[in-house]
Amino acid sequence: MRLYSMPSSGNSYKVRLLAALTGQSLDRVDCEYGSAALQQAKDQGALPFGKLPALRLDDGTTLAESNAILCYLGEGTAYWPPSRTLRAQMLGWMFWEQYNHEPVIAVRQALVSYPHRAADATPDRLADLLDRGHALLSVMEDHLATQDWLVGDAASLADICLYAYTHSAGARGGFDMNRFPAVRGWLARVAALPGHVTIDG
Amino acid sequence: MRLYSMPSSGNSYKVRLLAALTGQSLDRVDCEYGSAALQQAKDQGALPFGKLPALRLDDGTTLAESNAILCYLGEGTAYWPPSRTLRAQMLGWMFWEQYNHEPVIAVRQALVSYPHRAADATPDRLADLLDRGHALLSVMEDHLATQDWLVGDAASLADICLYAYTHSAGARGGFDMNRFPAVRGWLARVAALPGHVTIDG
Ligand SMILES: N[C@@H](CCC(=O)N[C@@H](CS)C(=O)NCC(=O)O)C(=O)O
Ligand SMILES: N[C@@H](CCC(=O)N[C@@H](CS)C(=O)NCC(=O)O)C(=O)O
Repeated sequence: MRLYSMPSSGNSYKVRLLAALTGQSLDRVDCEYGSAALQQAKDQGALPFGKLPALRLDDGTTLAESNAILCYLGEGTAYWPPSRTLRAQMLGWMFWEQYNHEPVIAVRQALVSYPHRAADATPDRLADLLDRGHALLSVMEDHLATQDWLVGDAASLADICLYAYTHSAGARGGFDMNRFPAVRGWLARVAALPGHVTIDG
Repeated sequence: MRLYSMPSSGNSYKVRLLAALTGQSLDRVDCEYGSAALQQAKDQGALPFGKLPALRLDDGTTLAESNAILCYLGEGTAYWPPSRTLRAQMLGWMFWEQYNHEPVIAVRQALVSYPHRAADATPDRLADLLDRGHALLSVMEDHLATQDWLVGDAASLADICLYAYTHSAGARGGFDMNRFPAVRGWLARVAALPGHVTIDG
């Protein structure tokens, strides 16, 4: 399988992290912003929706959307809960991530750290994203105050999914993680999973 | 099972439509915007994330996020593709819906039709949403030009999911559906599925 991946992006990191945790090897094509490799992948039609990550299967089918790729690679592994109810709760957190968390917590990190996004990083927008991000981290904090993992009693795809942009929310996004001790404890648990790799790994 | 549902909302309609198509009966609690029922459901803690739809299972667990609820109710039915690859493609469209389609196509409908959103409905914002919505509908058009259903050769949860806000995009959202004949053909196929109900049904 070939993964078209953006090294700096949490959406791509999710997939690399799950592959590492589950011992699945992926042939990786790195396509950073503005790179010739990204342009080439787009020109070849290798990216459904024109976005990364994209996973090309050995039969030539290409899968899009980071969280759908997580489901593809995660089905049947230890990160796939055994019951239908737990699977629906896991997917609930993953849809919440794409609808609520990523557009705020990832976007603030992108505005702050990518030079090509600097023009969009107005003080008002950054302040609004900061407040909304803290509110979203509070939702996670309340939930993780009483349980080790987002769903059930083991790490699942929901944890991998939400780890990607939460682990860098402080250093890269300017969110105040001191307010969220349960989230920090959970980040440490994900980082301690056997096989864990960092975003630079 | 009890569904907390907003009658006017596509996210809630998705779930009602799938339940009807698959012959699953749900005990329905209608919570329209601004209603006492919505406030009561929130006060009771019946809505995870404070949002609709929410599905309360008979064991007391409550599921959030429309698309996760579709997966819960859809698993194992005719709307659940038989292969891992098709399921991942289906989920890809569903994540795309929450990340791209809903925040544009549903939001323009809400801005135009809900009185409490009128203050956000500035001409610039409406024009921007119109352009972005047409670009998203073009993605669907290109895909549906060569196939009857979004994934594989049968209706799946992806079709139910994307039908919810696409079917009303013209009349309620002001999008120009004449430009998208393949999308209109697909809308007619979904509307003809046995057991189909309208959003007012
Ligand atoms: N919802 C998508 C988001 C994909 C996305 O927006 N990817 C960005 C990087 S994080 C991208 O491909 N940007 C390159 C471009 O737009 O040219 C997912 O979760 O995979
Ligand atoms: N991503 C969520 C969106 C849920 C959502 O935003 N629901 C709105 C209605 S469409 C709601 O509950 N609004 C009531 C409120 O915010 O008080 C889903 O797909 O279920």
